[in-house]
Amino acid sequence: MNNKKIPEIIIGRLPIYLRALQHTAENGIKTISSQELGELVGISAAQIRKDISQFGEFGKQGTGYSIEFLINKLCEILKVNQTWDVIVVGAGDLGHALAHYQGFKDRGFRVVAIFDNNKNKVGQTIGSFKVEDAAEMSERIRSLGVKIAVMTVPASAAQEVADVLVQAGIRSILNYAPVNVNVPSYVKVQYSDPATNLQKMTYYL
Amino acid sequence: MNNKKIPEIIIGRLPIYLRALQHTAENGIKTISSQELGELVGISAAQIRKDISQFGEFGKQGTGYSIEFLINKLCEILKVNQTWDVIVVGAGDLGHALAHYQGFKDRGFRVVAIFDNNKNKVGQTIGSFKVEDAAEMSERIRSLGVKIAVMTVPASAAQEVADVLVQAGIRSILNYAPVNVNVPSYVKVQYSDPATNLQKMTYYL
Repeated sequence: MNNKKIPEIIIGRLPIYLRALQHTAENGIKTISSQELGELVGISAAQIRKDISQFGEFGKQGTGYSIEFLINKLCEILKVNQTWDVIVVGAGDLGHALAHYQGFKDRGFRVVAIFDNNKNKVGQTIGSFKVEDAAEMSERIRSLGVKIAVMTVPASAAQEVADVLVQAGIRSILNYAPVNVNVPSYVKVQYSDPATNLQKMTYYL
Repeated sequence: MNNKKIPEIIIGRLPIYLRALQHTAENGIKTISSQELGELVGISAAQIRKDISQFGEFGKQGTGYSIEFLINKLCEILKVNQTWDVIVVGAGDLGHALAHYQGFKDRGFRVVAIFDNNKNKVGQTIGSFKVEDAAEMSERIRSLGVKIAVMTVPASAAQEVADVLVQAGIRSILNYAPVNVNVPSYVKVQYSDPATNLQKMTYYL
């Protein structure tokens, strides 16, 4: 892999390819063409070939991609050939659900702590976790060395929480709060506000 | 508004503008420039002006946009100047959280039913809902006339559930299952798998 800058939109498609390849591999299939992968993910074969070729020549004309090889390559590119520690901020219903979300394991992530600033929630048990006091979050992020946070806090608290997270060393934020947050350019934010996601579809109804 | 086809990527940005405008309005602010809105949402002022001008000339040179007017216009374009009924399929942790998610109200949505195929879950109470039997889902979708579904089912069940939903009249699916589903082109799907969202950021760590 060379060091040219890969557009963010391409990086954003790689996890979708990876997910489809992993499902296909579970069915015992060994190779896949860009056409077949394209049908699974709803993206054109030409786009897939172009995206993947950014990182090297992994496919063979006529036989397609080795699924195992491509999975390993995508895991390496996306750095999910390791397990990342994740914290959850906000112990409401959504925070609860994400703290023991079963879909993180085998995808490169493990929740290690959950925080809230509500004294009634601090100390509550969620699966194998005790909700920790948000006042101690900075110190815990530093001592755990964690880089990834999931925010399920109210909109009114989101910017303040994001500032604390970034200051403590968080570099990736999955934000369920219904508000944009301002962070330095070296921090990535993915937005996942349920109502906004629904509003992207009502236009078509 | 004329009938030209608006690119999906523009429609996808409108809910983000709307959310920022609604937050700004809550602070008693009456007008906003494209520069100010751009800073709130992390999108260039030129892009915002271009996106909004697809639907008419709503801003005034020098004074910017009337926030109230633009909110009403965006709600009308996105058809969230009404309340849409929504069903949740899958009464696991995430389904529970979404069934009584407080962020839907005032954004155009109201959950009206939650379904599961697990007989141990059917009949359970979640807030003001009783979990209903997925076997009765088609009939309930038809009698409720609901067009929007949130899917929080396992990957292995997602395609089958999506087929049932589409057959019964669902036209928008917010899919939390970690798998792509094939649906007819007149059905919109938004993907919101937490692990995939995290994998879009690890490349940059």
